[in-house]
Amino acid sequence: MKISGTPYRTIWPTAAGVIRVIDQSRLPFEFTTLDLKTLDDAAHAIRTMVVRGAPLIGVTAAYGLALALREDASDRHLDEATQALQATRPTAVNLAWALARMRSTVAEVAPSERVDAAFREAGLICDADVEQCRSIGINGLEIIRRLAETAGGRVNILTHCNAGWLACVDWGTALAPIYMAHDAGIPVHVWVDETRPRNQGAALTAFELGGHGVPHTVIADNLGGHLMQRGEVDMVIVGSDRTTASGDVCNKVGTYLKALAARDNDVPFYAALPISTIDWALDDGRAIVIEERSPLEVTHVAGRTSSGVIETVRVVPEASPALNLAFDVTPARLVTGLITERGVCPATRDGLRGLYPDWQKAK
Amino acid sequence: MKISGTPYRTIWPTAAGVIRVIDQSRLPFEFTTLDLKTLDDAAHAIRTMVVRGAPLIGVTAAYGLALALREDASDRHLDEATQALQATRPTAVNLAWALARMRSTVAEVAPSERVDAAFREAGLICDADVEQCRSIGINGLEIIRRLAETAGGRVNILTHCNAGWLACVDWGTALAPIYMAHDAGIPVHVWVDETRPRNQGAALTAFELGGHGVPHTVIADNLGGHLMQRGEVDMVIVGSDRTTASGDVCNKVGTYLKALAARDNDVPFYAALPISTIDWALDDGRAIVIEERSPLEVTHVAGRTSSGVIETVRVVPEASPALNLAFDVTPARLVTGLITERGVCPATRDGLRGLYPDWQKAK
Repeated sequence: MKISGTPYRTIWPTAAGVIRVIDQSRLPFEFTTLDLKTLDDAAHAIRTMVVRGAPLIGVTAAYGLALALREDASDRHLDEATQALQATRPTAVNLAWALARMRSTVAEVAPSERVDAAFREAGLICDADVEQCRSIGINGLEIIRRLAETAGGRVNILTHCNAGWLACVDWGTALAPIYMAHDAGIPVHVWVDETRPRNQGAALTAFELGGHGVPHTVIADNLGGHLMQRGEVDMVIVGSDRTTASGDVCNKVGTYLKALAARDNDVPFYAALPISTIDWALDDGRAIVIEERSPLEVTHVAGRTSSGVIETVRVVPEASPALNLAFDVTPARLVTGLITERGVCPATRDGLRGLYPDWQKAK
Repeated sequence: MKISGTPYRTIWPTAAGVIRVIDQSRLPFEFTTLDLKTLDDAAHAIRTMVVRGAPLIGVTAAYGLALALREDASDRHLDEATQALQATRPTAVNLAWALARMRSTVAEVAPSERVDAAFREAGLICDADVEQCRSIGINGLEIIRRLAETAGGRVNILTHCNAGWLACVDWGTALAPIYMAHDAGIPVHVWVDETRPRNQGAALTAFELGGHGVPHTVIADNLGGHLMQRGEVDMVIVGSDRTTASGDVCNKVGTYLKALAARDNDVPFYAALPISTIDWALDDGRAIVIEERSPLEVTHVAGRTSSGVIETVRVVPEASPALNLAFDVTPARLVTGLITERGVCPATRDGLRGLYPDWQKAK
């Protein structure tokens, strides 16, 4: 999508053979890019959330493995690099998925050919992600179009965290239908949950919607339920970091609360996701291990001072501990539908089986 | 309650005849007091949230009227002062309640006697609030005691915003039962919602629980639902800014989301409140006008930098608007019970009628 009129992806190989990414840890106040030259660069970028979002993490890990093989294309280093990348973010299933796909490709060829094969495969994963997001957008667009026809006015869509193009390579998952609706002339307005503790909504979703010209309003995570009670939310679309075979949605912490409010107010609640986030081996989302991150993300907030400096301030007394669990699981019963690259289905085993008969058979 | 071993109230008259309050806008990082000498001082303190919390707003307004009468004890100024104080915070019913009580007292006496009558009456309102909170604590303590007996271990209590002694004169409403349980040797631990956008949980609840030595952990507002899913919350206690005659609870925005999660996970959800927050004239909480505050509270966060300076940082892109509605309404159907100074009752018209037969008759 565009920033100040210039089309961007979140990650791309340069002519010089390095992998360039947008440094999302500095958004929305500084737009800079970072060059990844080694396995360590890639692992560090994932771990420190220079890149974030399940699909982009997968693509970055794929390129990270290619960078690792350029350092050393042996079987042993392939194993070590895979493990190092896998350890960066334990929850995102895309990471394991992309690494498995990369390994199965490069393991088939001789070490001397692995680097070329790895960069080629990472490029294919990257392009496939763009196409998947575009398809998610097209499928979700139809839901928004129907809402606009019945509502007869502006469609108000609430989203949580950032599942936009910054979380992917382009388009995004949850935001792809919104971009397409906006581009199609449907009047949409987005309620952007700020998404504490890391503020990905306030920082990233607001930034990218603003960059593309989509009307939006930032709200505290606490407000969404009240807006639904007032009838000011027509639908909710969120992303998914991991979706179980029965339709449970593991996404940024707080998603579950919005799903409860949507159900209580008859607001349709959708999760938008590519196949790579589906964990076919898992039925019950309660079994998902939830990533615990540093309490500093709760006790401190980063932003820009009035003099233009990026500063971190403490908002909790020194003596008070904090707990920072990054995700929660929304049970399938609260999910109106899953928007995937193959279509929209109920959040059920049968629903997913209908869209992905090939994957179900593989189990 | 105590701060660093010294007992405090949130508001008290000094020997010099001024009203001294704790400046809560500087907590948790600076503990200072502020002297209110005029009507304008009192109105400003309420409006800028130097004092906040429904009961404390009422008491401050009462003293504010006394200060106003010391400037000018005429009927006209009594009217003007009442209106000025009433306009500071439109949602809190305590404000209107305290002002009405003050007016009915001072209107009965000659202007020359009004100042003494007003300070005396404000003092009575102040002391009555302490007694009410103490009674709420005693009544709520029994619920915690039963939970401790059945749970057989630490009782985990989630609270939202600040309904502690800093919101009142002493003890607090939602936190009074927790202080009493802690003092009685019952092992309690409090999950403190940070409570965006103003962070009263992170700033005030954590500060006062820490000051009294009650174990607690600060969490993002997004996390409470997940903790309930994991069985790590035994009960929720919140305050109430306004309670309808049928038991709907208007409280800090986000309360409704926690009530939904509590219901979904069979966690008991209580609101603790004194009679002054009950709006006997209102049945349906959806009719309550919700205060809209400055979007700057959403777009900016105040805290302390590593060099010890209190700094405000912007967390939302310059071009993005924000909406800041301060309260929401939790429907009575989601409330397990109301903890009042007269006992615990179901959140129903009959429940409240049982505890307050005298007030129901007055209607």
